[in-house]
Amino acid sequence: MKIAILGYGTVGSGVYEILTSSSSACASRFHVHAVLIRKNKPKTLPIMVDDIEDILSSDVDAVVEAMGGIEPAHTYIKKCLEHKKHVVTANKAVVAKYMQEFTTLAKENDVSFLFEASTGGGIPWIHAIENVKRIDSVREFHGIFNGTSNYILDHMYKDNAEFSDILKKAQELGYAEADPSADIDGFDIQNKLQISASIAFGCYIPNTFPVFGIRNVTKTDIEFFKEKNRVLKLIAAADIHDDTYHCSIEPRLYPLGSLEASVPENFNLASIRGVTIGDLKFYGQGAGKLPTANAVVQDLIDIIEKKAHAVLLDKDLNYHPSQRPASYWIRTKSMPLEQLPNITVKAHAYLGHTYYFIQGITTDQMHAIMQNIQQEDKHAFMAAWEEDYD
Amino acid sequence: MKIAILGYGTVGSGVYEILTSSSSACASRFHVHAVLIRKNKPKTLPIMVDDIEDILSSDVDAVVEAMGGIEPAHTYIKKCLEHKKHVVTANKAVVAKYMQEFTTLAKENDVSFLFEASTGGGIPWIHAIENVKRIDSVREFHGIFNGTSNYILDHMYKDNAEFSDILKKAQELGYAEADPSADIDGFDIQNKLQISASIAFGCYIPNTFPVFGIRNVTKTDIEFFKEKNRVLKLIAAADIHDDTYHCSIEPRLYPLGSLEASVPENFNLASIRGVTIGDLKFYGQGAGKLPTANAVVQDLIDIIEKKAHAVLLDKDLNYHPSQRPASYWIRTKSMPLEQLPNITVKAHAYLGHTYYFIQGITTDQMHAIMQNIQQEDKHAFMAAWEEDYD
Repeated sequence: MKIAILGYGTVGSGVYEILTSSSSACASRFHVHAVLIRKNKPKTLPIMVDDIEDILSSDVDAVVEAMGGIEPAHTYIKKCLEHKKHVVTANKAVVAKYMQEFTTLAKENDVSFLFEASTGGGIPWIHAIENVKRIDSVREFHGIFNGTSNYILDHMYKDNAEFSDILKKAQELGYAEADPSADIDGFDIQNKLQISASIAFGCYIPNTFPVFGIRNVTKTDIEFFKEKNRVLKLIAAADIHDDTYHCSIEPRLYPLGSLEASVPENFNLASIRGVTIGDLKFYGQGAGKLPTANAVVQDLIDIIEKKAHAVLLDKDLNYHPSQRPASYWIRTKSMPLEQLPNITVKAHAYLGHTYYFIQGITTDQMHAIMQNIQQEDKHAFMAAWEEDYD
Repeated sequence: MKIAILGYGTVGSGVYEILTSSSSACASRFHVHAVLIRKNKPKTLPIMVDDIEDILSSDVDAVVEAMGGIEPAHTYIKKCLEHKKHVVTANKAVVAKYMQEFTTLAKENDVSFLFEASTGGGIPWIHAIENVKRIDSVREFHGIFNGTSNYILDHMYKDNAEFSDILKKAQELGYAEADPSADIDGFDIQNKLQISASIAFGCYIPNTFPVFGIRNVTKTDIEFFKEKNRVLKLIAAADIHDDTYHCSIEPRLYPLGSLEASVPENFNLASIRGVTIGDLKFYGQGAGKLPTANAVVQDLIDIIEKKAHAVLLDKDLNYHPSQRPASYWIRTKSMPLEQLPNITVKAHAYLGHTYYFIQGITTDQMHAIMQNIQQEDKHAFMAAWEEDYD
């Protein structure tokens, strides 16, 4: 199969490495014809080009988009599909935004559009959802989908350290960007949750669900939860009931010794529940050059072996606020008790801070009240407490 | 696709249920033509037959073997393949023994022989190995592949209970057989390790590797290890170096808070390592009616969708005793120190028992010496200590 790669950063160079390495079991199945780099960048490989037209007019069978970002990735993917080239991408932002357009274009042009690497990195998560759906309808899934925030939470817990110190360490190790916002505020996970939920539920899921990140978590918070034998994880979750779905991203407290609590370093863990299969969980590197490139190449091999699923987004579902009563711990100086009628609130003092335990509230109510709280107390933090584990 | 099911026990009836249930996403793709039951058993479904010839002479496309045991399963699978019917089985014993014969026959008759459900139950483990191999060569895999023994070890740890009490509870719950030997002595896992290693390494792996089970573990052992922050798990492991492989089954001690240590109840966890993908781990129900049946039906859908891999066992590998120095804890009244020259042995007294910590020994040496120890002290127990986690 004749391949072009758009972009030669971390993922693009990783794909090139796997496709051309003599130690890859698959290298003989591929010929890398061209690598697109930006104009004015040095061409370090003879096959490098800087004009997308060179690729569109070539006879490459499949294009790997590894540029990241929305534009020009969106335009290039569209053009490649229109030129009847299969497209494989690791770019979660562009997939989350334009999934419908891309899957429709792919279908019209009788080619594949695949994005296993966009969510869960090297974990075959999109495949897992698709396989569960062959037999069961998916009722619920959740997981740790961001390695950077897991690294921070894991090391705050194990090293008894402040957020800022571990963030700095993560930046030095290359796990976190100079601007860490996408990872710690949950927006990276938001893309991945949109993608996962769209595949799981067969309907395009927009980014209009509650998101609360870990920017405000402190060493004291982690200690307070540790005394309760709980470990904090940043979780994306989705479920479906009839023709309504619910999604959220928030810190959750898992019991020490549970599988979620045990995910170390920058690993991911994705869980799915089906009626006959029960609970399945998938653990692996959610990012990184070679694991992500591996997932891209798995998609390419699926295309060669004619194993690629067409993505169907033909269901009509509506977002519905969760009805399930949930429990939360909130650390704040400014608890608006008047906004919580008929809700049980208990206050606990700990090392000069006040933690409120709130029971019988829904996820959407809690996130809305937290937005109000943060107008008065921008350092406030919250974490969901899984009652099922008590 | 027209299906026959051989056997109507737990797995057979589960497959029938999924293939005929209106809530299965796949039911419309299948027609169950016949179910083979034993002669003289009551025919509770109109499609039940008691003569394999009725199935061989029919136009069914695929046969699900769910009888268990070696014969007549072996003969019937052979006949079905010779009659050019795809065969899917959950029967680990017959696959571990006759994998070569079945895969050769399947190839000769241009049909598929698939056995995802034989190992790891509902976990797509055989698929996982095959997918890793599309890009990486597999260097190492290991895992918890027996739900019954995991249930026993998990509850001994959490309930602070004796082996015999938890075994009895497992038998009441239907997790353990009246004769629990296959589960607690490691022979169930032996079949699964043979199957996994054969697929991973591309060579038929016979059952000639060290196996030590959990029959002798006591409440005191678990307590002793708990004080060292370790959790005991029964682990199957395999690795390969050039053209030699190593396999073993033994109890191992994982640190509290590690993923392996966190596997609860009767769940399984299978781990694989590839050069580019890094570590992948898969968690789910390793047994049970519907999870196992789900894996069988996944194989059937792969056949329909022409996604089935042909199993290739064309490599020539030899077993080689492990060269890696390992550490073990041994509880015995009779330690043959004269058999351990140049090995560090430290004795620790605990609640009236003596535990020996042995360092710098290999797995195969330790298993051989343990056989000698058990001739004098048949209640002796051993567990491997993973130094990497110190």
